[in-house]
Amino acid sequence: MSRNNNTIRIALDAMGSDDCPAPEVQASIQAANEYGDEILLVGPEDELRMRLGQLDGSPSKVKIINALEAITMEDKGLQLALKAKRTKAKNSMAIGIDLVKNGQADAFITAGNTGGALATAFYRLGLVDGLERPALTALFPVQGGYAVVLDIGANPDCKPEHLYQFAMMGSIYAQKVLSIQNPRVGLLSNGEEAGKGNQLIQETFPLLLSSDLNFIGNVEGKELFGGQADVVVTDGFTGNILLKSSEAVAKLMVDMLRQELTSNLRTKIGAGLARPAFSAIRKLLDPSEIGAAPLLGVNGLVFIGHGRSNDYALVNAIRTARQAVKSNLLEAIRNRIEEQISSLPQVKVS
Amino acid sequence: MSRNNNTIRIALDAMGSDDCPAPEVQASIQAANEYGDEILLVGPEDELRMRLGQLDGSPSKVKIINALEAITMEDKGLQLALKAKRTKAKNSMAIGIDLVKNGQADAFITAGNTGGALATAFYRLGLVDGLERPALTALFPVQGGYAVVLDIGANPDCKPEHLYQFAMMGSIYAQKVLSIQNPRVGLLSNGEEAGKGNQLIQETFPLLLSSDLNFIGNVEGKELFGGQADVVVTDGFTGNILLKSSEAVAKLMVDMLRQELTSNLRTKIGAGLARPAFSAIRKLLDPSEIGAAPLLGVNGLVFIGHGRSNDYALVNAIRTARQAVKSNLLEAIRNRIEEQISSLPQVKVS
Repeated sequence: MSRNNNTIRIALDAMGSDDCPAPEVQASIQAANEYGDEILLVGPEDELRMRLGQLDGSPSKVKIINALEAITMEDKGLQLALKAKRTKAKNSMAIGIDLVKNGQADAFITAGNTGGALATAFYRLGLVDGLERPALTALFPVQGGYAVVLDIGANPDCKPEHLYQFAMMGSIYAQKVLSIQNPRVGLLSNGEEAGKGNQLIQETFPLLLSSDLNFIGNVEGKELFGGQADVVVTDGFTGNILLKSSEAVAKLMVDMLRQELTSNLRTKIGAGLARPAFSAIRKLLDPSEIGAAPLLGVNGLVFIGHGRSNDYALVNAIRTARQAVKSNLLEAIRNRIEEQISSLPQVKVS
Repeated sequence: MSRNNNTIRIALDAMGSDDCPAPEVQASIQAANEYGDEILLVGPEDELRMRLGQLDGSPSKVKIINALEAITMEDKGLQLALKAKRTKAKNSMAIGIDLVKNGQADAFITAGNTGGALATAFYRLGLVDGLERPALTALFPVQGGYAVVLDIGANPDCKPEHLYQFAMMGSIYAQKVLSIQNPRVGLLSNGEEAGKGNQLIQETFPLLLSSDLNFIGNVEGKELFGGQADVVVTDGFTGNILLKSSEAVAKLMVDMLRQELTSNLRTKIGAGLARPAFSAIRKLLDPSEIGAAPLLGVNGLVFIGHGRSNDYALVNAIRTARQAVKSNLLEAIRNRIEEQISSLPQVKVS
């Protein structure tokens, strides 16, 4: 995949979000206007054309790529694998990802079935040479900014070499997309001290220590949410639980606070006056501010957004994707993996 | 261990908390007054006697058990193991736990080094017959109450049989100490659907399904913090990360909220009026409300509190411990493990 000109071309799955395709149509127009990118909206041509026609300011930069089928939230198991894998697949994820594969788009974004996006990207794009596993990557809101956390769900069972490669990819993502010079890499563990951790962590620690990464050692929730690491590495099972539990705790606190604040007139008035503060917090914790999480390690830029994404979230997802394109993220990952394999023969990569 | 009379006897490590022994001395007097229990305060006799003498209302029910040494937060590794194991150990944890072992106390509480308490209890009390691993257990504040979560740190690497036994112990704890009739048991996983999870979870799921526990399947953060399970089972690595991340997210939100609320006069006034609501939230999230987490599975009742415990937290810890004593928690766990071993030969217990 190489770009022929300076226009960034983003393929957007029109059939991804819970309310699709309305947010996708809206977002594609807005992003094309705002960034000047070419948006390839992948979905049922007739419906998309009608919807685009109804909106003001439909720019010529939104192109429709016809796809009459879709992978839904109900697809799973063998059925999902077939939809993801079939050469002549007609679903919007497969067609959108093929645009990336064939060099017709620089990145693909979907707010659809995460497992579906993972499988489709894995089967159709394949992995970067030398890489063992792809990693789903999230930006966590932390004190002072964001932390890149990976894997958050692609690989429930991992080996030390996988975590080592996640660390490399996360570090490059932090450099390229977040513009952090020398990202601090932490290993999520049940204790900060070296030697803490389950078997996986104890075996991963020396790999990271002997690498040229800026490895700061084991980190716990305190360091992660305190903003002491730029990249936090974990297996996909633990990372997924971390992500969902953090969201659930935040939601519980907001719910409890709302309940308490509306319990009497005095606190109600207080809450009214303090509203701007609550809005600021909500914005910080809102996943739609980032828009989408990259699937790192496949041969193409793929971003997966939340099913509840609205047009605002999707525009932000497009902004994140275009930063990845502009910074040549994929090339940097490829070079880094290649480099590490030749320089570190003790890391077994099959 | 059996009680000779109706007075509950709680051994309290006077050398546990960060500010020891002041909070312990204060708490022992208050608990003895409030509950009528006999508190065996384990620590340096002269100092404790002096401090008790300085306080009003020192009741005869606080007894001092001399222990001139202590396990500190700095103790680890081999040194810690020796302190925990030695027959003639003179540290307050070993002496306090020996009181339980010898039937002179019904339960032991410490706010000291968690690893130290774990090791000391494990070496000196041993495990309940047929049990493979002890489990550190926490009550998580969730929508509508609390959820029992175990293991939160005793076993970083677990087998399915361990998680199965944790589920039994957690269920009994919820019944006996929290008075929940038929506790709903969930398995922490990266997805609610059966079949989700890493290898450990996938192998544990059928064990729980075929048990007579009220198993509700896999749970994620949403179900845990939404209060949909009474007991949530996990390995000690994941559980520890869950616990510490949840605390860190809550702290981050409180910090951000404080920062936002004090950013201008309007929100400052609002925050002042809404103060009672914030206090209510803080109380709900405060670990000192529960006071201490039980170490389940050892041959004796052992509770471990936070290092930052104050006298209020320690009185609550004593209240939790006395509920466990009154409800014959230990006997119930022993009976249950024995019963399960004879009824379920397919569960391999070495």
